[in-house]
Amino acid sequence: MNAEPASTDIVAITRDMGARAKAAAVALRSASTATKNTALKGAARRLRADAAAILAANAVDVAAARASGMGAALVDRLALDPTRIEAMARGLDDIVALPDPVGVTIEDWARPNGLRISRVRVPIGVIGVIYEARPNVTADAGALCVKSGNVVVLRGGSDSFHSSRAIVERLRAALAEAGLPADCVQLAPTTDRALVGELLRATDWLDLIVPRGGRSLIDRVTEESRVPVLRHYDGICHVYVDRDADIAMACDIVANAKMRRVSICGAAETLLVDRAALDSHLKPVLDRLFELGCEVRGDSEIRAREPRALPATEKDWRTEYLAPVLSVATVDGVRGAIRHIATYGSQHTEAIVTSNEATAGTFLAEVDSAIVMHNASTQFADGAEFGLGAEIGISTNRMHARGPVGLVELTTYKNVVRGQGTLRP
Amino acid sequence: MNAEPASTDIVAITRDMGARAKAAAVALRSASTATKNTALKGAARRLRADAAAILAANAVDVAAARASGMGAALVDRLALDPTRIEAMARGLDDIVALPDPVGVTIEDWARPNGLRISRVRVPIGVIGVIYEARPNVTADAGALCVKSGNVVVLRGGSDSFHSSRAIVERLRAALAEAGLPADCVQLAPTTDRALVGELLRATDWLDLIVPRGGRSLIDRVTEESRVPVLRHYDGICHVYVDRDADIAMACDIVANAKMRRVSICGAAETLLVDRAALDSHLKPVLDRLFELGCEVRGDSEIRAREPRALPATEKDWRTEYLAPVLSVATVDGVRGAIRHIATYGSQHTEAIVTSNEATAGTFLAEVDSAIVMHNASTQFADGAEFGLGAEIGISTNRMHARGPVGLVELTTYKNVVRGQGTLRP
Repeated sequence: MNAEPASTDIVAITRDMGARAKAAAVALRSASTATKNTALKGAARRLRADAAAILAANAVDVAAARASGMGAALVDRLALDPTRIEAMARGLDDIVALPDPVGVTIEDWARPNGLRISRVRVPIGVIGVIYEARPNVTADAGALCVKSGNVVVLRGGSDSFHSSRAIVERLRAALAEAGLPADCVQLAPTTDRALVGELLRATDWLDLIVPRGGRSLIDRVTEESRVPVLRHYDGICHVYVDRDADIAMACDIVANAKMRRVSICGAAETLLVDRAALDSHLKPVLDRLFELGCEVRGDSEIRAREPRALPATEKDWRTEYLAPVLSVATVDGVRGAIRHIATYGSQHTEAIVTSNEATAGTFLAEVDSAIVMHNASTQFADGAEFGLGAEIGISTNRMHARGPVGLVELTTYKNVVRGQGTLRP
Repeated sequence: MNAEPASTDIVAITRDMGARAKAAAVALRSASTATKNTALKGAARRLRADAAAILAANAVDVAAARASGMGAALVDRLALDPTRIEAMARGLDDIVALPDPVGVTIEDWARPNGLRISRVRVPIGVIGVIYEARPNVTADAGALCVKSGNVVVLRGGSDSFHSSRAIVERLRAALAEAGLPADCVQLAPTTDRALVGELLRATDWLDLIVPRGGRSLIDRVTEESRVPVLRHYDGICHVYVDRDADIAMACDIVANAKMRRVSICGAAETLLVDRAALDSHLKPVLDRLFELGCEVRGDSEIRAREPRALPATEKDWRTEYLAPVLSVATVDGVRGAIRHIATYGSQHTEAIVTSNEATAGTFLAEVDSAIVMHNASTQFADGAEFGLGAEIGISTNRMHARGPVGLVELTTYKNVVRGQGTLRP
């Protein structure tokens, strides 16, 4: 485990983490899949074997959180129990089972002069993960980075510091046991906010920052970081019900997209109804939502037809409720839906419900979001549902990776050129 | 053409460019390949037909540059002539002939629940290109962005402003003639440096900044930009001559890598010689370099064997000469070469010369550069030589794209999900 530093010199602490991370990266970059898997299996075994010690560390965090007056929902996110530790360990086992992206040839071609060129996946390098209360991020992010050949520097929240440290200790012991540097996974030894600032300027050793947390964290990282950032902004996801939608399917998809789980980023926040479908589709779709206990906020046309709907204001179109609330707007066909999404959307995930393939094609081609869907629930916006296995998050960046970020998206590539003494004329 | 703004309010000018860029991006994103090619062919035709007008505009820039005392080499970079205009037009024709990356499916797969998922290439969006004196960048960057479906905002140097404006006028006229918004290509109407600052903060409408110029420009952009940057830092390229290198091949590759053109980023700057090859390989390799007029700066072991070598200092290992000068270091085999490159390299392009496949494999796997080569000259570090066609530059970023950035690298992807009323359990 990282020793608690005697010095409180944040610059020196960060520099030390960087030097150790760079050294570890050289070894990890060329580690075999078997070695990385051995480390991850060992980490899962240790999480299970040392569950009591991890729970004891977590109890310290939970007690402090309760004493500080933290709300019950946040305490629940922080608290571990044997089931959650088992889920964490199983998460590591799942990552072991995933294919190793490193060393895979993405494409290769030959040139007329005999050069053979290929692009081969390689780790990004050193990744900084800045997160808040959930201790399970520690194991998830650590394991995803190790499997993809990346050294990870974790900066957890102060609320979960003891829990995160107990988890990281097991990861580091397992790395060392597998013959890899323990420093492939480091936890910042202090939760001083100044250390975040140092990480955001550490362009000499940090290749990527992944902030995981609320909007204020993302905003600070975006504003201050000189290191590239892979981030997730709002998920103001839309479902558009077209005139050619099957009514029963529209009811099912809207209900699932909104109400299956209201707190995830892929939950729908706005329903767009084709003006030509108001007579046929609106009532059955809203009836289902009301049955499920959803609040509906509609524009004037929606409210004229549905007295139970509250009035929606301009602000509603820009709001990610993460709650059983849905804004509903009337649009002029698929073009109107595309315009509404372009104006108010967050380029995360949008779905169309229609039986008309041409209309679906227009929507899928022209909506400029990370994930676009036809006749499916927006709640599928998830790495595991995509079949990528575990994910470190969903990217709303436009560059490098869009949507779920799993092992493959945690790699980059290099160009490998093979000649036979080939000279450029 | 952009009208010269009456107001000198840089914030307002930038906002206006942004609004026009966003509107143009919607149309360009879904433009057909045929339409984009029609625009580029029209632009090439106009460059040729209006060569006299472009030369007249260029003459204004050249006269001002001479009057301000600009050096002959820089004036030469700035000056156009009929041959250079024809080369620019031919560059556009070449981009017409390249395949359109937009809409290409990168991968697709099915899930057990029946979802079909694909990743489809889409334009990045709006790209800002900040460049210095060369007017040909205007046509190149404009055409590459249009073909890849990206709106481009060009901010050229003040030295080439009239030339760039004359070129952009032809591109914009051709875009309009093809039925695309002229605003797909915009030239900043002022070369006020404050406008660069505004672009670097324009996260609401600018998706990527590509700085093309010297180190001070790149440094400013890196330090200030809140928009993602695709950049090219130093090209401190290495050639490692292994004990198992064919001697004649080593002489040819080192001579080509260093001396074919000394001013390009793929030119070798440091030669690493295996200690076990000093007796056999060093003299023939250096003899060839001296014949070609190259200055050699060696470490103490090199100088002990080669009296014509000047002493190399620590600084030489970190220097991109871009001149007929080569630093030469002795290393302990391929591992020593890998260590030297890791310590002093810029992760651009490195080559090994060896007939030993295992040694080559170690080098290609462990050198962590954008381009790694076996038995080939580092001067192949070039988009056209890679077969990508024209390039907007070479990326030394680790994320998104490494090495030559052509049309494909100017795109990103979206995730397209097709269901049959599929709900998440």
